[in-house]
Amino acid sequence: MKDSIQTAVLGVSGYAGAELARLLLHHPNLKGRPPVFLGRAEAGQDSSLTALHPQLVDNNGSAGLKIEPFSWELLKERGVEVLFLATPHEQSREYAPLALEHRIRVIDLSGAWRLSEADNRAVYKFDDDGSAVTAAVQTKAVYGSPELHRDEIRDAELVANPGCYATSIILGLKPLVAAGVLDLDRGIICDSKSGVSGAGKAPSAKTHYMYAADNLSVYGAFSHRHMGELLEQLGLDRSQIVFTPHLLPIPRGILSTIYVTFREKKSPSEVDALYREFYAGSPMVRIFGAGHLPQIQYSVRTNYCDIGFELDKDGRRCIVVSCLDNLLKGAAGQAVENLNLMCGWDEAAGLE
Amino acid sequence: MKDSIQTAVLGVSGYAGAELARLLLHHPNLKGRPPVFLGRAEAGQDSSLTALHPQLVDNNGSAGLKIEPFSWELLKERGVEVLFLATPHEQSREYAPLALEHRIRVIDLSGAWRLSEADNRAVYKFDDDGSAVTAAVQTKAVYGSPELHRDEIRDAELVANPGCYATSIILGLKPLVAAGVLDLDRGIICDSKSGVSGAGKAPSAKTHYMYAADNLSVYGAFSHRHMGELLEQLGLDRSQIVFTPHLLPIPRGILSTIYVTFREKKSPSEVDALYREFYAGSPMVRIFGAGHLPQIQYSVRTNYCDIGFELDKDGRRCIVVSCLDNLLKGAAGQAVENLNLMCGWDEAAGLE
Amino acid sequence: MKDSIQTAVLGVSGYAGAELARLLLHHPNLKGRPPVFLGRAEAGQDSSLTALHPQLVDNNGSAGLKIEPFSWELLKERGVEVLFLATPHEQSREYAPLALEHRIRVIDLSGAWRLSEADNRAVYKFDDDGSAVTAAVQTKAVYGSPELHRDEIRDAELVANPGCYATSIILGLKPLVAAGVLDLDRGIICDSKSGVSGAGKAPSAKTHYMYAADNLSVYGAFSHRHMGELLEQLGLDRSQIVFTPHLLPIPRGILSTIYVTFREKKSPSEVDALYREFYAGSPMVRIFGAGHLPQIQYSVRTNYCDIGFELDKDGRRCIVVSCLDNLLKGAAGQAVENLNLMCGWDEAAGLE
Amino acid sequence: MKDSIQTAVLGVSGYAGAELARLLLHHPNLKGRPPVFLGRAEAGQDSSLTALHPQLVDNNGSAGLKIEPFSWELLKERGVEVLFLATPHEQSREYAPLALEHRIRVIDLSGAWRLSEADNRAVYKFDDDGSAVTAAVQTKAVYGSPELHRDEIRDAELVANPGCYATSIILGLKPLVAAGVLDLDRGIICDSKSGVSGAGKAPSAKTHYMYAADNLSVYGAFSHRHMGELLEQLGLDRSQIVFTPHLLPIPRGILSTIYVTFREKKSPSEVDALYREFYAGSPMVRIFGAGHLPQIQYSVRTNYCDIGFELDKDGRRCIVVSCLDNLLKGAAGQAVENLNLMCGWDEAAGLE
Repeated sequence: MKDSIQTAVLGVSGYAGAELARLLLHHPNLKGRPPVFLGRAEAGQDSSLTALHPQLVDNNGSAGLKIEPFSWELLKERGVEVLFLATPHEQSREYAPLALEHRIRVIDLSGAWRLSEADNRAVYKFDDDGSAVTAAVQTKAVYGSPELHRDEIRDAELVANPGCYATSIILGLKPLVAAGVLDLDRGIICDSKSGVSGAGKAPSAKTHYMYAADNLSVYGAFSHRHMGELLEQLGLDRSQIVFTPHLLPIPRGILSTIYVTFREKKSPSEVDALYREFYAGSPMVRIFGAGHLPQIQYSVRTNYCDIGFELDKDGRRCIVVSCLDNLLKGAAGQAVENLNLMCGWDEAAGLE
Repeated sequence: MKDSIQTAVLGVSGYAGAELARLLLHHPNLKGRPPVFLGRAEAGQDSSLTALHPQLVDNNGSAGLKIEPFSWELLKERGVEVLFLATPHEQSREYAPLALEHRIRVIDLSGAWRLSEADNRAVYKFDDDGSAVTAAVQTKAVYGSPELHRDEIRDAELVANPGCYATSIILGLKPLVAAGVLDLDRGIICDSKSGVSGAGKAPSAKTHYMYAADNLSVYGAFSHRHMGELLEQLGLDRSQIVFTPHLLPIPRGILSTIYVTFREKKSPSEVDALYREFYAGSPMVRIFGAGHLPQIQYSVRTNYCDIGFELDKDGRRCIVVSCLDNLLKGAAGQAVENLNLMCGWDEAAGLE
Repeated sequence: MKDSIQTAVLGVSGYAGAELARLLLHHPNLKGRPPVFLGRAEAGQDSSLTALHPQLVDNNGSAGLKIEPFSWELLKERGVEVLFLATPHEQSREYAPLALEHRIRVIDLSGAWRLSEADNRAVYKFDDDGSAVTAAVQTKAVYGSPELHRDEIRDAELVANPGCYATSIILGLKPLVAAGVLDLDRGIICDSKSGVSGAGKAPSAKTHYMYAADNLSVYGAFSHRHMGELLEQLGLDRSQIVFTPHLLPIPRGILSTIYVTFREKKSPSEVDALYREFYAGSPMVRIFGAGHLPQIQYSVRTNYCDIGFELDKDGRRCIVVSCLDNLLKGAAGQAVENLNLMCGWDEAAGLE
Repeated sequence: MKDSIQTAVLGVSGYAGAELARLLLHHPNLKGRPPVFLGRAEAGQDSSLTALHPQLVDNNGSAGLKIEPFSWELLKERGVEVLFLATPHEQSREYAPLALEHRIRVIDLSGAWRLSEADNRAVYKFDDDGSAVTAAVQTKAVYGSPELHRDEIRDAELVANPGCYATSIILGLKPLVAAGVLDLDRGIICDSKSGVSGAGKAPSAKTHYMYAADNLSVYGAFSHRHMGELLEQLGLDRSQIVFTPHLLPIPRGILSTIYVTFREKKSPSEVDALYREFYAGSPMVRIFGAGHLPQIQYSVRTNYCDIGFELDKDGRRCIVVSCLDNLLKGAAGQAVENLNLMCGWDEAAGLE
C-alpha cells in the first residue's frame, strides 16, 4: 500500500467531472499531487481548470492547473496509476481497454461497463458488443458499489462506477432482498426523483430553466437505462420491479420512494435490524430507521446515502426512502470511495 | 335557472380563498355582483380585500371591497344564496348546518363533510361525530367531484369540495376502477407530489423557504387524511391502495404517479378508450393518452386535470400520471364548477 | 372602428409569442377569429400550435390551430389587417417594410424599429441602416408605450413595441423626468433584475437550470441594448443614467430599483401626486405610492406595471421601484394594448 | 500560541449557528475537542445536536454531542477560552460583559457590539446604552473584519463579527475609499440582494416559501441596521451612501452591486491594482478584476468574498460587484477567521 499515487481524470467538463476534480484536489492522500486533467484542447480556448469551473478557484494552487490534451505518452510520463473516465459511455468503451493494456487501473463513471448481461446492455447500443476484447474486459469489470462488492473492488483493474438512480435504489433494497423477506410477486415499485444536474451540462430544451423550474415531469417510464443495474445487482427479473424517474426542480439530489411488501408480518425493529446489520461496516450509509424518513436536503453535498422506512400497521407493506447526492454518492464521491479501496486507504478518506 | 346569484365567501385569507375570490370576481355570471367576503375583523387592521391580497388589485373595482364581520343577518340582508366555506374543517362543521337552517346552500372547501363512513372520518377527530344533527347534514352532503357526481351536485344543498390530492388520484383511477379491469390484489400505489401552497399559509418550520427549497420530503406515509376520500370514491379497501404525499419545492401543482396492474393484457388504445369514454362529457379533464405524460407546468394556473399513461410492454403494468393545480381544480376552481352546476350554468363558466 | 379584425402572428415559438397567442385567443374582440399563426414549417414536424405549446390546449378550439408557412398571399387571402412580428430583430427589419407595402399594419416586438437615432441603433448592427427605404419606414415607427404615445399609436402603421427592461424603467422615471424635478447631475442609477424568460427560449449555458437556479449574476453592465430606449424616451444623455441588468432565478418578472435625487426637497405626497397625475388615464399602471414598494409577485402574470417609491428623510434622495411581467407588460401584453389602441378598442381589452 | 483550545457556542439553533458548529467540528486545530454547545434545554426535547440539525450527522462522532444548559460554571469546568455568541443582539449585550469578567474571550455574531457611535446604535434600541459597564465593554470591542483590523483582532477580548451585507459592501468599497479616489459628492449606491437564510430561521410571513419563491422584494430602504457599520468602517456620512437590501428567492448568498464615481479618469488596470494591493495578504478575498464579475454561485458554500468591477468607457463611473455566502464569510466563516487570528493560527484554517 502506497501513501499516495498519481491519478488522472479524462473528461472534467461536466458536473460529475467538476465534483471529482474538487474531491481529488482536497483528498488527504493526494496533497501536492493534483490529478492530471485531460480533455480536448479547443483552439483559442483558455485551458485552465478554473476557467472551466470558476467555483474551483481557491488559494490552494488550483489556479495553475491546466486541462491537457490526452495521450497515453503523457499518462506514462506522469506515472499515472489510476485513470478516472468521466466520459460518455461510447468513449469509455474505447478508452478502458486501452488503459488496461497500458497497465493503468480505471474507474469509469459512465454506464459502459456496469452490465454483465448482453440483454441489459442492449439499451446502450454498443457497437463493439460481442468482440473478444470487449468480452474479456467486461469480465474484469467490477460494479463499484463498496457496500456490495468491497473486496472485489480492492483488487479490481476496472471499476464500473454505479449509476446515480441505481445507487439510491440498490442501497435501499439490497438488505431486504438479500434477507429473502420480500414478497416479490407483489412487485417492487421504485418512484425516483432527481435534480437537474443528473440531466447533464449540455444545454437542451429539458435543462432550460423555464422547463425545469416550477415543474415536475416523468421521463423514461419502463425504459430507463439504470434498470439493468437494478436487475443484476438485486438479482431480480423485469416482472418484479418497476422504476420511474422524475425530473425535480432542484439542482442536485435524488430521493427514491420504494414500495415493497414483506412475505410475513414484520415489526419496525426487525426491519431496522436488517438494515443496520447489512451496513454495519459501511461508513457511507446512514440508517435513519423506522418512522424517520430522510429528505434530500440532509444528504445533498455529502457522500452519504440516507435510508429510512415507514411500515404500515399491517406489518407487510413498507415504504423505503433512500436519498443521496447524485453527483457525490451517485457519481464522483462513490468513485473516490472506489479509489480509496483500490489503494488500500480508508473508504471514507477525502469524503467528510 | 337564474342568470346570476349572490354568493358569499367565509375565510378568504388563505391561498384557496384568494383564488376563489379572484375566480368569483371575474365570473361572467357574477359581473357586478361581487361576493360578500366574510371574516374576522381584527381591530386596527385594514379590512380591504386588496390589503390582504395585493395581487387582487385591478382596475375592475376590487379596490373597494371589504372583508366584513360574519353574521347570519348580514347574509340574509344581502340575499346570499350560496355560501363558500374556505374555513378550517372544525369551523365548517359548525357553520354548514347553520347555513342549511338559514336555507343557504353551501360549498365547503374543507374536509368536514367529504366522508360518509365514521371510520374514515376518525382521522379528523370531529367532536360532534355521532350527533343527530351532524348525521342528518352528513346525509345531505354530496362529494363535489363533477366528473363523478354531476347530477347530485346540481340539486345539492351541501357540496363537500374534494381534497386536492384526492382529486388528482380519483380522476386518474376512476375510469379503470369503474371498468373493473384492475388486478386489485396486486395493489395500487399512488405516489403524489404537491407544491408548498398545499401546506397552507400559516408560517411553520415546513413552509419556511429554507426547508422547502432545494428539497423533497415525504410526509404522512400511510396516514394522510385524503385516504378516506380515495377509499369511498373508488370503492376500495385499505389493503388495496397505498398513498404517499411528498412536498415539492414549487409554489403550486400536484403530480400523482399511479401504479396499477391490469387483470388481463391491454393495448394502449384500449386503455385510452376507457379514459375518453369516461370523461366524454367532462370539460375539465384533458386526456393526454398513451405515451404522453402530463407535467405540472401544463396544468398549473388552469382548472384542468391532465391525465396520461404509459403501458408496459407486458400490457399489464401501467403508470398513470395525473396533474392539476392544487388551488384550482384541487380547490377553488372545482368549487366554482360546483357553483356552476348548482346554478344550472355551464360547468366551465369562469374557468377558462 | 370595427368590432373585430383579422390578426396574424409571425414567430410564435418563443415565450413572448406563446403569451401573445394566448392573449389573442382569449381577446373579447377576436372571438371566433383566431390569429393566423405563421412560421417555418419544419419537415415531419407536427405543425399544430398545441404541439409547440401544450399549455395552450384548452376546450375552446385551440386544438385545431396550425402554424402555417408564411407568405404574403396567405395574409392577403385571410384578410389580415394587423401583423404581429415576434421575430428576431433582423427578421423584423426585413418583414416590416414589406408588410407596410402590402398595407398591413405591424406591431413589432423586437428591437428593430424602436430607436430613431443611428447612434443608439449601432448596438444592433443592422445591415440596412442608412438605406432610403429603411429610413422612411423608421420615420413611420411609433414607440409603442401607450402611457407616453397613446395618440400616435392609434394611427400608427408600424408600432415598435418597447423592450421589457426599458418599459419598467421608463414608466418608473418618466413622471419625474417630465416634471423636471430631478437633479440629473447626480445621475440616475437603474438596477434591474429579470427572470430567465427574458433570456429567450434557445437553450444556452446561461439559461441552463444549473446556471440560473440558486444564483444571481450581472450581465451587460454599461452595454445593454435597451439603453438607447431609455435615452430617447426619457430625453437623457448617457452621462446621466446607468442601467445594470441582473439575471434572477425566477421564470418571469422584472423589478427595477431606480435611484434618483430631487433638485429640491420634496414631500412623499408631492412625489405621489406627480405619479398619479401622469398616469391618471392609464389603466395599466398601478401606483403603490409612498412607502409601499411593489414586489415581483404582485405584477407577474398580469399586464400591470406597478410603481412605488421610498423617499429619504432628506427629501431629496428617492428609491423608485417598478415591477412588471416581462412577457406581458414587457412584451405580449403591451403589444395587445397597442392593438387595442390601433383598433379604437378599450386600451385594456383582453388584458384583465 | 497553543495548538488547540476549548471553544463553546451559545445559540446553535439558527442557520449561522449550524454552520459554525459544522466548521468547528471539522477545524484541524479542534480535532478531538468539539465545542461545548449551549442553549436552553426544552423539557422533553431531544437535546442532541443532530436532532436539531440532521445534516450535521456524520461518522466523525457528532452523533453523541448534546446541547447543554448554559451556565458559567459549566464553561469554567470545561476550560472554555473562547465563547461564540450566536444569539440575538439583546442576549449578546447581556452575555458578553459577563464572559469578559470570567476572562473568556468572546466572538459575537450579533449586531450588539459592532458600532462605536451611539447614533448608529440607536437603531438597535439597546436598554443598557449609556451605562458605564457597557461603555467600557464597547471600548474593548474590535470590529471583526480581518481584512481591515487583522492586528487588533489578534489581541481582542471581544470581537464583533460583522454583518453579512456590511461585509459584502465594506470589502467591495474599502480599497477605493481608502485610496481617496472616489467622488463622494456623486454618492455611492449599494444595491444588495440576499438569500432567505439571511432572514433567520423563525417562520414568518416573509420567510414562507410562497412569499419568497418566484419573487423579489425590497426591504428596509433607507433604514437597514447595517448602515451604521458601513458608515463607521468606511468613514462616510449618511449623505454619501445609499444601501438597499432585497430578498432573493435563493437559500443563501449575497450579491452587492455598488455604483461609484471616480474623481478622475481611471484605467481598468489602475482600479485592479488598488484591489490587489489592498488584499495582498488576505486569503479570503478573491479579486476577479476588470470585466470579470463574480456571481453568487461561485462564492456560495465557500468562505470567500469575490470582487470584480466594470469600468465605464468614461473611466469615471464604475460598477463593483461583491459576492459572498451570508452564512460563511458573512457570519460563521468570518467568525472562524477571527478565532484563527485570536489563537495565532493560519487565518484560513478550517475554511477551505
